Amino acid sequence: MRFFIVITGTEFTTGLKQEKNSLYISKEVFKRGGEVIGIHIAPDDIYQIQYAIKIGMDKSDVVIVSGGLGPTEDDMTRNAISEAIGVPLIFDEEWLRTIKNTLKEQGREITENIKKMAKLPYGARKIENPVGKALGFIKVLDDVKKAIVAVPGVPSEMKPMVLKALDYLGLKEQEKRVHLFRTFGKPEAEINDILSDIEDIVLNSSPKGVDIFVLDKNEFFLENKVKVIRERLGELIYTEEEKEMEEIVGNILKEKGLTVSTAESSTGGLIATRIVNVPGASEYMMGGVVSYSNQVKVNTLGVKKEDIERYGAVSEPVAKQMAEGVKTLLKTDISVSDTGIAGPTGGTKEKPVGLHYIGYSDRKKTEVHRVVFKGERNDIRLAVSQYALNLIRLNLR
Amino acid sequence: MRFFIVITGTEFTTGLKQEKNSLYISKEVFKRGGEVIGIHIAPDDIYQIQYAIKIGMDKSDVVIVSGGLGPTEDDMTRNAISEAIGVPLIFDEEWLRTIKNTLKEQGREITENIKKMAKLPYGARKIENPVGKALGFIKVLDDVKKAIVAVPGVPSEMKPMVLKALDYLGLKEQEKRVHLFRTFGKPEAEINDILSDIEDIVLNSSPKGVDIFVLDKNEFFLENKVKVIRERLGELIYTEEEKEMEEIVGNILKEKGLTVSTAESSTGGLIATRIVNVPGASEYMMGGVVSYSNQVKVNTLGVKKEDIERYGAVSEPVAKQMAEGVKTLLKTDISVSDTGIAGPTGGTKEKPVGLHYIGYSDRKKTEVHRVVFKGERNDIRLAVSQYALNLIRLNLR
Repeated sequence: MRFFIVITGTEFTTGLKQEKNSLYISKEVFKRGGEVIGIHIAPDDIYQIQYAIKIGMDKSDVVIVSGGLGPTEDDMTRNAISEAIGVPLIFDEEWLRTIKNTLKEQGREITENIKKMAKLPYGARKIENPVGKALGFIKVLDDVKKAIVAVPGVPSEMKPMVLKALDYLGLKEQEKRVHLFRTFGKPEAEINDILSDIEDIVLNSSPKGVDIFVLDKNEFFLENKVKVIRERLGELIYTEEEKEMEEIVGNILKEKGLTVSTAESSTGGLIATRIVNVPGASEYMMGGVVSYSNQVKVNTLGVKKEDIERYGAVSEPVAKQMAEGVKTLLKTDISVSDTGIAGPTGGTKEKPVGLHYIGYSDRKKTEVHRVVFKGERNDIRLAVSQYALNLIRLNLR
Repeated sequence: MRFFIVITGTEFTTGLKQEKNSLYISKEVFKRGGEVIGIHIAPDDIYQIQYAIKIGMDKSDVVIVSGGLGPTEDDMTRNAISEAIGVPLIFDEEWLRTIKNTLKEQGREITENIKKMAKLPYGARKIENPVGKALGFIKVLDDVKKAIVAVPGVPSEMKPMVLKALDYLGLKEQEKRVHLFRTFGKPEAEINDILSDIEDIVLNSSPKGVDIFVLDKNEFFLENKVKVIRERLGELIYTEEEKEMEEIVGNILKEKGLTVSTAESSTGGLIATRIVNVPGASEYMMGGVVSYSNQVKVNTLGVKKEDIERYGAVSEPVAKQMAEGVKTLLKTDISVSDTGIAGPTGGTKEKPVGLHYIGYSDRKKTEVHRVVFKGERNDIRLAVSQYALNLIRLNLR
């Protein structure tokens, strides 16, 4: 089944807002074996929306329109669809009553603008809105064997309503067509070289590492590719699910019954907050110290003042003492630390922007890694946090 | 000038990757007074790309295509354009030499696939790539007074090349057409009510608050609207620039010569890391303590154990003692703290999920705010960090 997605909103065509609904819809269609042959973002202009719908009807089996179902004058998707397919709009009386009752409870009266949210093309099947007032619908055009779906643009309304529409169209989640590897430790170009002979892979790189999507419509071939890649990449892979490094690390800590703490300079609390991103982190996360100033490094973490003077705050001994200091202070089994120059200024020839010392300490040892990261300040800090979390993973495997 | 943007990439139409280039291009076009009448995302399929280009040529004055200029077989934008406009591709000999020389320095030979990155339609003006090998171009079709621009999909290459193309088309940055207010403290619905009589505003809400974009092509009317909104929203506005709360707070602290520290439980370091997001934060940020466990609250911050037992860790006295404790420990002028239940579980009837106590302390006083936030765990934590930073702003104004 071929899909065409139409997104409406002048906020997208003027660059005021990042459009994200098409990502969700495409993914759900793809997971169910459908093919998206185009995504078209139109401003709130009835002619442009109509035109997009017509292109979609022409090229695909199903057009999904998201946005423009609300009560304002900018909301014109209903009319655009009605005119594009030549079917008049009527009120869904039941939904109109639902809206009226909701408003009554709030002590409000229904207005003409609100009323129009209960309209749908004659003969369309309604898709109830579990959150808001705008009614969605799916209209099947039997003569041309095509369908058009309309859902609101508000993500919390759009998502369940798209799933209902896909269900109604008979699209079920398929056998696996895609496999994800999330890796950290090698840049995209190197991963690309390692996997250069494997077809249909998509690489997606970020400061958190390189994600590899392996595609194949045939499950047997997919599994084969997956085995080869798993073998080649080994410990670079930190998960094969849609999970974050902090979840993987959290699971390991929980499983082993170990507690963790952090001593952060350059990342300023980012490692700690990422660990706490995971619900239930209180089982293993005790806390941390953000020692941005040298004074805090010395007074709170017990880093030797003379070592900071001798080697500088960005140095191997300081990272080591930070990790060991916080581990002692907060009485944990494991700790990580970092000190570095995130930039954009502050670098020297010996200590360039991006240089970081990242420490890991457990009951048996402390190790410090010297790494020079490239990129913008906050990308570097994100990469440092990923590196530190990955050190926990690699040490506790 | 009417623009149509074509983005290529199967990774977008299968929902594997968030498309972002169209946001950048739309924004730059809008800033220069151009109008984007449509954005079309096509999979790596030469017919779909060609079709998108044809629609664009039909509807607009300028089509900008991003993506598909690389060396792989999926890169077919050049051919799609050539066929769509009926102009053959030729080599740019100068660029071909540039590529050859770059490869030579790396000890590599040029291949047929790499060669094609130096091709452009006959008569097109080249747009040199400041980062990579793929040549961009702009082809003006004099007979129809239209132009087509091709740039790579890699953002660091795409961005400067789009600016060059807009320059060449004579689009200069215009008088201001849009004004931004970033607010925190009231939900979108309330802001909407306050501004309901003002036309052409776009609201964009997130855990960080509500951003208001005020649009008007006429600068006089724009300024008028801006004045009215500024008066109505008052201290809800934390900036009128594209800046983050941490930058605003950082500027205030720097200006007043005050130092800050944080004591975080629910946010787990997020406030600290946001303060450190700003280059030069070392002038005022001393550090912080992430006191996720009660043990750290008591041992490191000096929160009274009996108060935790009596009132619970999520309570007004604990938030107060955390703020005062970290201020004393790290010897700073100002401090903020939080303790709360971010969810998804852990709530009770008296202390529901989302409940937070947020503390602020300076030389004169300590205040604690009780707020119940709604949303997902990490949205709540982001909102808490914004609330804490905003407390610094409101207290130091």
